Amino acid sequence: MKEKISIGIIGYGTVGSNTAVILQEKNKIFASHTGIEFQLKKVCDNDWSRKREWMPPAAMRTSNYNDILNDPEIDIVVELIGKFQPAYNIIKKSLMQKKAVVTANKFLLSKKLTELLTLANTSSSYLGFEASVAGAIPVIKVLRESFVGNRINSIIGILNGTTNYILSSMSEKHQTFGDALKSAQKLGYAESNPSLDISGRDSAQKLAIISTYAFQRAISEDNFLIEGIEKIEIRDIEFARELGYRVKLLAIAKRTDDMVSLRVHPALIPVNHMLSDVEGVYNAVYLEGDLFGKTLMYGEGAGGKAASSAVIADIIEIGRKLFLKSHLSERFIINPRVNLQPADRIETRYYLRFTAIDRPRVLASIADILGKNRISIASVMQKEENPERAVPIVMLTHTAIEKNVRDAISAIDKLSYIRQPTQIIRVEG
Amino acid sequence: MKEKISIGIIGYGTVGSNTAVILQEKNKIFASHTGIEFQLKKVCDNDWSRKREWMPPAAMRTSNYNDILNDPEIDIVVELIGKFQPAYNIIKKSLMQKKAVVTANKFLLSKKLTELLTLANTSSSYLGFEASVAGAIPVIKVLRESFVGNRINSIIGILNGTTNYILSSMSEKHQTFGDALKSAQKLGYAESNPSLDISGRDSAQKLAIISTYAFQRAISEDNFLIEGIEKIEIRDIEFARELGYRVKLLAIAKRTDDMVSLRVHPALIPVNHMLSDVEGVYNAVYLEGDLFGKTLMYGEGAGGKAASSAVIADIIEIGRKLFLKSHLSERFIINPRVNLQPADRIETRYYLRFTAIDRPRVLASIADILGKNRISIASVMQKEENPERAVPIVMLTHTAIEKNVRDAISAIDKLSYIRQPTQIIRVEG
Repeated sequence: MKEKISIGIIGYGTVGSNTAVILQEKNKIFASHTGIEFQLKKVCDNDWSRKREWMPPAAMRTSNYNDILNDPEIDIVVELIGKFQPAYNIIKKSLMQKKAVVTANKFLLSKKLTELLTLANTSSSYLGFEASVAGAIPVIKVLRESFVGNRINSIIGILNGTTNYILSSMSEKHQTFGDALKSAQKLGYAESNPSLDISGRDSAQKLAIISTYAFQRAISEDNFLIEGIEKIEIRDIEFARELGYRVKLLAIAKRTDDMVSLRVHPALIPVNHMLSDVEGVYNAVYLEGDLFGKTLMYGEGAGGKAASSAVIADIIEIGRKLFLKSHLSERFIINPRVNLQPADRIETRYYLRFTAIDRPRVLASIADILGKNRISIASVMQKEENPERAVPIVMLTHTAIEKNVRDAISAIDKLSYIRQPTQIIRVEG
Repeated sequence: MKEKISIGIIGYGTVGSNTAVILQEKNKIFASHTGIEFQLKKVCDNDWSRKREWMPPAAMRTSNYNDILNDPEIDIVVELIGKFQPAYNIIKKSLMQKKAVVTANKFLLSKKLTELLTLANTSSSYLGFEASVAGAIPVIKVLRESFVGNRINSIIGILNGTTNYILSSMSEKHQTFGDALKSAQKLGYAESNPSLDISGRDSAQKLAIISTYAFQRAISEDNFLIEGIEKIEIRDIEFARELGYRVKLLAIAKRTDDMVSLRVHPALIPVNHMLSDVEGVYNAVYLEGDLFGKTLMYGEGAGGKAASSAVIADIIEIGRKLFLKSHLSERFIINPRVNLQPADRIETRYYLRFTAIDRPRVLASIADILGKNRISIASVMQKEENPERAVPIVMLTHTAIEKNVRDAISAIDKLSYIRQPTQIIRVEG
């Protein structure tokens, strides 16, 4: 029975220093809940000149992570440096030495989660990664334990606060994408180089981690159809509103039999869907399972405190397991039957905005090409503007196959009276 | 290392038979996740004539629960009979014999949770009770593990599907309370005697369980201010809508310093609050903590499958612990500092609907009495109808103290030009 757990933190930024502060401020509360004293023993960072919420005493500080990996007293390594290397080696080496690892490294895990879970398994250690996705929302815990009896059929996430903030601003304040991005940067909600967020790749990395876990199969962002939000215009948001939808960047994984389709793209979602109400920098994960039905979890997706809450939960879980003399490892079994669906076989509904000169035959020609590609139209909205100039024609389709839609739009965009590439946004829910 | 876990179910209704079916259909999946064979060994019910989804073979059936309690091979007792006795004795006896218990019995737990958790503790056994509140929503798991580092400051739940369905119907279909109740009964969403749901007591029992856990203190429904939804009229829902609110039956627990206030009542909640979008028979739990910030979990609150999902999660958790040679018990520590706030000290905002003869001095008199009771008015809405007849005057107050509001309304209702008792609905969020 282990009554004192020693912790080393590698990477001492906002989440790291928040975690250190909480471990100290709440030390007695944690001890009363668990019977364990959680002791922060060493902190590693390569730059000790920056200001932090709490500065560890000199004896606790190091700039060499091997001081933590080689310390036999340290039970838990908290990896918060991010990126691929040296994080990958740190985690592997820790697990092989039977140190438990807690990490928030979404980039690394979106590539190596199955390998690291398998390593944790074989070395009887433990990998905690709740903080790597959706901040304080306990999606990994809930999939692993609360919904373990379920077959997961659908995961739809709003997993990136930056893009959700931008789309919310465009919708509420009628800002252009560019203006909304600038104000997000000013408020610290977007980085100076926002491409990882804007492009949808950040969301894809997070959903890769959740999906790997939910579907028991190695999944990386390379398996996703990924579209960013750069092309969304205010008028798309406004047309969507008229049709009863909001526009959100969604990360979607759907399972049909043993086929999983994965995609991240902006989507129209009906205003009566709970996900449509997730505004600003908040995150949400919507799940469907064969037993629990439909569920949604909503919360803060980023920020030092929310991420620290998830790091602390993993630390305490590991502590409890050590205290209870459990073997740490859990079984992570790869399901060989699960296959990934090619992106061009996706089936969904589509919002199409054509920009055409307002001639009598336009609608008929578009409908004809759509029909030949087996795409049927659910509704049409045409704003009568200036008949001399190009006008928007907005259509919602019934369920169609991605490849057919791409083929049809490619043909339509070659018509002489189409004046701009057609806007394609998928519809969800 | 225990590789086979034997289970006995006592009380074989919808949840019980769903659980039995899942344990058999998913047996191999659970074994691959956990390395454990979960075997249903005995099922007890006192009426075997009713039809079930799956009927156990004769050798598995019994009508004497002692056949399960006295079977040394049975590791987990699943208690699904409900009510107080014999459930209370069954659970106590099981825990004392170091059998783990899984229960969905909200009535019993709302009275005896601290006692039973303490007994599980001292007897090194385990009590799983996720299914007792909010169906498949994993609120107990998340409080116990994911948010363990947090101080919980606020819990607001929509915990009763029947009343939420009735209020949704009143709002969407403009039905009276009576008509909405009848249609809920026809659809099987309300029982023929709906008083437990309608009165708010069911919600109070569920929040008592969640709060006991969140605040580490024995809390029963007797500690709640409880008001039901019987008095809500369509016009209150419509006035609320005009003011930007929806009306929901909320179960609220708030902690300020070491004082916890507990109440269940209909409340106005702003349309932009996530809880306002929870419609029909769905449940939701909104939490605030010092680290994770704000979070909401939404899902199916009732139904055999959703409840079974929670029962199965507890069974598998117990199985994993047994498999990993863990001691089963967890520490449940009572926090002696937490006190309960008397109901008349609650502070919140209020919706007040006066029914008054439309005389020039009415508003001034009402405002005068409110002011003397230190209640300040945030907004007033008066519909000019027939000056000869009683008209509704709707007010929203700023934050006021419950006792002051009761005193003021009691004085106002004695005024000669007030023609009906004033409608009081609290405002949340």
